[in-house]
Amino acid sequence: MTRGHVFIATSLDGFIARPDGTLDWLLSRDAPDEDHGYDAFIARMDCIVMGRGCYEAVRAFPEWPYTRPVLVLSHQLSGQSVPEDLAGKVTFAAHTPEQAMQHLAAQGHLNAYVDGGQIVQSFLCARLIDSLTITTAPVLIGQGRPLFGALPQDIPLRHEGTRAFPSGLVQSTWRAD
Amino acid sequence: MTRGHVFIATSLDGFIARPDGTLDWLLSRDAPDEDHGYDAFIARMDCIVMGRGCYEAVRAFPEWPYTRPVLVLSHQLSGQSVPEDLAGKVTFAAHTPEQAMQHLAAQGHLNAYVDGGQIVQSFLCARLIDSLTITTAPVLIGQGRPLFGALPQDIPLRHEGTRAFPSGLVQSTWRAD
Repeated sequence: MTRGHVFIATSLDGFIARPDGTLDWLLSRDAPDEDHGYDAFIARMDCIVMGRGCYEAVRAFPEWPYTRPVLVLSHQLSGQSVPEDLAGKVTFAAHTPEQAMQHLAAQGHLNAYVDGGQIVQSFLCARLIDSLTITTAPVLIGQGRPLFGALPQDIPLRHEGTRAFPSGLVQSTWRAD
Repeated sequence: MTRGHVFIATSLDGFIARPDGTLDWLLSRDAPDEDHGYDAFIARMDCIVMGRGCYEAVRAFPEWPYTRPVLVLSHQLSGQSVPEDLAGKVTFAAHTPEQAMQHLAAQGHLNAYVDGGQIVQSFLCARLIDSLTITTAPVLIGQGRPLFGALPQDIPLRHEGTRAFPSGLVQSTWRAD
């Protein structure tokens, strides 16, 4: 089965975005001269799984940023054709997390970057996340879209490493046993 | 004004206890041979502020563990006498966070250990927390009593330091600017 990997930033109080989706609290703390490891992470991934919200946000960028195949999990989009300029790059499907991983495994993909709050939560619930790299920004924002949600049971993790950056960002990697 | 300091452990998903208050997820990951810095922290504190829930939990211990004066903020307890064996050690009051800090400052206390979820949240809202030392346990528990809550505005923090322990606990200290 394909293994899922999370690489995401949160506020210290665990939000990945404000209620309206904005990231000013994070972007204002980013230091362009610091390498937070995204390029090294994405180089190890074979494919990307995201939800509709994440897809639509990325779709609005001037250029499609991903060089890996992207699977968008969405009931709403699954009946639609992929836009012409994304043909061969993006697949829409209404899969469950398990079905998504089976689909990706059938294509020979070993490691999937799992992105977006609700998608991460549903993959965690299904125990399909192998590693979590969480970059914490030094700010409390009080409300927003949480990274984590309810779980059917505890998920024990193993701490793999932590590094702190001069910007104040702190990045830890945790691995599911 | 007295400055507030938080020293607390959370699950990776930000809970300080399960919904029923239990800490098994934390205690099972504690390593008695690791020094997580509590003694050094408490040695710098002049006094302790907590809510009724925290007081009642500690009151059930075989011995009262604190050598510093404890201020318990509780409307319910503020009308009651302090138990005889805690006379001179504990004060009950219905103070707001600001009143509590003024009361402590009038007694010459510079640094207060602020403990317990709701009390920490109310002191954060009032911008009366100077530092947060958060020890993260390598587990997601899915639900429980959150450390953080809503805020009237962002609270920017400065990362002071992070250390990881062989047990998998990761401890960061953040300071309010």
